[in-house]
Amino acid sequence: MADRLSTLFVRTLREDPHDADVASHKLLIRAGYIRRAAPGIYSWLPLGLKVLGKVEQIVREEMNAIGGQEVHFPALLPKEPYEATGRWEEYGEGIFRLQDRKEADYLLAPTHEEMFTLLVKDLYSSYKDLPLMLYQIQTKYRDEARPRAGLLRVREFIMKDAYSFNIDDEGLEEAYQAQRAAYLKIFERLGLEVVPVQATAGAMGGSKSEEFLNPCDIGEDTFVVSPGGFAANVEAVATVVPPAQPYDDAPAPVELATPGTKTIGLLVDYTNEHLSAELGRKIDPAETLKHLVLSVTAPTGETELVVLALPGDRDVDMKRIEANLGTIMDIPGELIIEPATDEQLAKVPGLVPGFMGPGTDKNAPFFGLESSTGLRYLVDPRVVPGSRWVAGANKADTHVYNLVAERDFTFDDTIECTAVRDGDPAPDGSGPLTTRRGIEMGHIFQLGRKYAEALDLKVLDQNGKATVVTMGSYGVGVTRAVAALAQANHDDKGLCWPQAVAPYNVHVVATGKGEEVFDTAEQLTNELEAAGIEVLYDDRKKVSPGVKFSDAELIGVPVILVVGRGLANGEVEIKNRATGEAVNVPVAEAVASVTELVNQG
Amino acid sequence: MADRLSTLFVRTLREDPHDADVASHKLLIRAGYIRRAAPGIYSWLPLGLKVLGKVEQIVREEMNAIGGQEVHFPALLPKEPYEATGRWEEYGEGIFRLQDRKEADYLLAPTHEEMFTLLVKDLYSSYKDLPLMLYQIQTKYRDEARPRAGLLRVREFIMKDAYSFNIDDEGLEEAYQAQRAAYLKIFERLGLEVVPVQATAGAMGGSKSEEFLNPCDIGEDTFVVSPGGFAANVEAVATVVPPAQPYDDAPAPVELATPGTKTIGLLVDYTNEHLSAELGRKIDPAETLKHLVLSVTAPTGETELVVLALPGDRDVDMKRIEANLGTIMDIPGELIIEPATDEQLAKVPGLVPGFMGPGTDKNAPFFGLESSTGLRYLVDPRVVPGSRWVAGANKADTHVYNLVAERDFTFDDTIECTAVRDGDPAPDGSGPLTTRRGIEMGHIFQLGRKYAEALDLKVLDQNGKATVVTMGSYGVGVTRAVAALAQANHDDKGLCWPQAVAPYNVHVVATGKGEEVFDTAEQLTNELEAAGIEVLYDDRKKVSPGVKFSDAELIGVPVILVVGRGLANGEVEIKNRATGEAVNVPVAEAVASVTELVNQG
Repeated sequence: MADRLSTLFVRTLREDPHDADVASHKLLIRAGYIRRAAPGIYSWLPLGLKVLGKVEQIVREEMNAIGGQEVHFPALLPKEPYEATGRWEEYGEGIFRLQDRKEADYLLAPTHEEMFTLLVKDLYSSYKDLPLMLYQIQTKYRDEARPRAGLLRVREFIMKDAYSFNIDDEGLEEAYQAQRAAYLKIFERLGLEVVPVQATAGAMGGSKSEEFLNPCDIGEDTFVVSPGGFAANVEAVATVVPPAQPYDDAPAPVELATPGTKTIGLLVDYTNEHLSAELGRKIDPAETLKHLVLSVTAPTGETELVVLALPGDRDVDMKRIEANLGTIMDIPGELIIEPATDEQLAKVPGLVPGFMGPGTDKNAPFFGLESSTGLRYLVDPRVVPGSRWVAGANKADTHVYNLVAERDFTFDDTIECTAVRDGDPAPDGSGPLTTRRGIEMGHIFQLGRKYAEALDLKVLDQNGKATVVTMGSYGVGVTRAVAALAQANHDDKGLCWPQAVAPYNVHVVATGKGEEVFDTAEQLTNELEAAGIEVLYDDRKKVSPGVKFSDAELIGVPVILVVGRGLANGEVEIKNRATGEAVNVPVAEAVASVTELVNQG
Repeated sequence: MADRLSTLFVRTLREDPHDADVASHKLLIRAGYIRRAAPGIYSWLPLGLKVLGKVEQIVREEMNAIGGQEVHFPALLPKEPYEATGRWEEYGEGIFRLQDRKEADYLLAPTHEEMFTLLVKDLYSSYKDLPLMLYQIQTKYRDEARPRAGLLRVREFIMKDAYSFNIDDEGLEEAYQAQRAAYLKIFERLGLEVVPVQATAGAMGGSKSEEFLNPCDIGEDTFVVSPGGFAANVEAVATVVPPAQPYDDAPAPVELATPGTKTIGLLVDYTNEHLSAELGRKIDPAETLKHLVLSVTAPTGETELVVLALPGDRDVDMKRIEANLGTIMDIPGELIIEPATDEQLAKVPGLVPGFMGPGTDKNAPFFGLESSTGLRYLVDPRVVPGSRWVAGANKADTHVYNLVAERDFTFDDTIECTAVRDGDPAPDGSGPLTTRRGIEMGHIFQLGRKYAEALDLKVLDQNGKATVVTMGSYGVGVTRAVAALAQANHDDKGLCWPQAVAPYNVHVVATGKGEEVFDTAEQLTNELEAAGIEVLYDDRKKVSPGVKFSDAELIGVPVILVVGRGLANGEVEIKNRATGEAVNVPVAEAVASVTELVNQG
């Protein structure tokens, strides 16, 4: 039976909620789709639940189509499996932990790799049982430090998470490609533009991984694309480095006074004004070496200072650092990375903020695990052997010129730490990169054998030998998809859903006071329903046409059928919510016209 | 597409799991419907999830049919609303509590009265908005002290919880009756026998409430029925009390030595052997007064000793005491009620275990809030004015005879504390009671204004006056329904689901080695699917007929279609899983015959 606005549990709001920052959040609240229950925790009202259900169903159908079998795991899980893989600790403050009445430790699961691995281990034992693809659509939890943007970054959310189990790498690649194709289909059906981009595996581990990003200004991820088809999350972009240079003829390093040059800009200006004669050239910000010291805290609570060096013309990208530092330092789990405080810096002997540098004698370096300071020293990959740099001299108001990498200094490792810029070359030679913002809608991983090894998931292969299973994991943010769809489908008047996920196909609005208007609207509602169309009928008697129209525009059902003034001429109006196009049709043709519009999607 | 046993994620087990005590639990595990993830926490495998989904859908349809609107609340909720109603404390150890990274308090909700109340308060403001009925089908949590019987008593479970909102009591009664009728329909569709019985409101508060109990030997609830139609949970049965007796002519109390009579049996035997001459009569256990001392701990942690007195021929019923004691003592929330320990008893001055009694002078009583011991004194309702008793004399090896209630002793209150027995009279005069065991499948409450008052949910009435809304709450245990259905539909070979909730309508079993058998089975599978029948097809090639048959019986799809030896004569076998009846039909008639059987339900 059609839902009626006289009884539907919804109240539209004229004002934006005070805590909402992005359009999708404001509109989902104002139009009565969701309500906030706690920071990053939302209740779904009837309208919202309908949209959510449609998204879920599309995801489910596409998972079933590639042979996925649906299961359902608890959200409340014991510590032990997560301890076995190290994630209990690695998640740090990012998960909710609790104890039961017997003081046993539990968590609210943010993802279920461990449990799926154990379940398959429980049931299966032979290569003949594989390949296997399982999935669930289930409520997950993360204790986000900063919940934001309504449903975009929340603490309780619904995900589809799928897991593949194969006996060998070829099988994993096949499963991965099947999921990849299913994802493209899911987002196509949802009407949500996505770009699959290369990604880093992060806390999940594993080798290959891709994200599906919905290009959107309010997205938290930055990705790059090239004309030749390269696409990656900036976190996963490898800097194109210049070739190593011979340096036999390079001039020796020289220490020069550079008073008051605490920033790269001041340094370059001072150098080119006062020292270019002495140096025999002018310098460019790109040949200076900028240093910063980070305080890095592991999930265990241990803190280490790390020094980074990068070309002076480049911005630091903390997300790229966060994505890569753990692997470089060989610390699993989420690191807390912050700029070192003045107190921390003051404790490093000889360190002069604003005038840091690697020293000029690689046998007596200033930075590095084997140096006098003992601080880990990581540099941008552009610091190739023979590259020449200007850096601080570890003395106030002094810099070193003609510093040559490899000849004068070394480092512990390189790190991708600079912001990728429009125009930077793609790592695969496919042209200059363009940066864009996006919302992460899905993420697929080739996990490989990490979880199966940690939890001892083995099956007998064809020769009867116990073989570790190789796994993939594949996530879609279902709750987040609702937010992204709202964000991608709105205007200044409200939401405008695509048919595939709209709470109803058509919104019938009866305006006027005559009985005839309501009788006709009622009849059309019934006929539309009989034709298999989902109808929201605004049957409210004492509400003005203005309020009804603005409610319809706010709620955003894609087709609006107005039964009102035109009825005197035997006509009703059919409006396309997104385009605003409206046509009058005879009452007798209304159902056919609406059906046609609905079927166009 | 039909599911095939060659790929379906299931492994049947020949052995019962060691931790399973009841048949439904054993069989759901052995047949591959569920797996244990932690105590009282289960994962749903594909077969189980299908049954669960069907139960959910039946519940959803019947809620929608009475105008219920589906919403969805978070499971992770902030403390504040539950603090406002007092339930944060009242739940004691029965709920999971946790803190987020900012040390704010949260709980995993066991039920959502508070949140629904606040949501309606947020959206609605006028009597015109009412009546309103909302519901959700959602995951809930309780930190059960003793999870047991598989899905029957668990810590994470799915419930349908509905809430009604009305402006007046008549509206509440209507909503309550609509839910009651919907419940009867739900259980009828599920094929699950239920008896609606009067119940106590317990921690939920409110006035009228009924439970829907599925009669079952392994049920945790005891209920009674009478020939005249009375039905109640024993917790809610009022004892039929004899009329008060005049006692002007009653003999005075007399204290007699009764050596070694620590139990009622010993007391009665000793009395009738040694004292009947002196007393002028023999006594019966029913006229002795048995005392017990309970240690009662409130959710706040405070402990109080309470003395109970009941006729010596009656058993104590702790569940009835638990259901009633909180109200009598005016302590909200779940009490921890245990027999007082020897240490606790030793601290009561003058108390002699085995020989307790109220004393013989009502102006100097031994028990009672105003007595020398100060212990609260509660008695069975049969202790009416003028009733005569034998009780301990508060001296070792001594009892008092001819004790008369009201004349010789008084008490603080009465309490329903005795076990109801077969043959006891129904409180409404409808005949002798029969006791039965049952599983609580649903519970409906007229909450009244308790939650609306605590959280200030008011709407303007027709006169513009702010009026507190009256509420009802209505729960169905969806997870538990799966367990009860399994329990009610099994035999020694396995499960045998009713069609309404079976994971599939028909299980096609191909037995034999010839290609023809598999070709025919495949074809029938396709034809059945085309006819809208849900098929599980056992297409396994190297599995013996014996294993296939026993798997089919264990899994319990209601119709089994065997394609095997009979195929030589152009026949297949159609078997009714529940009755074991089997008929051979020509291949060409198989689809029609199966369809007919399926439609019979």
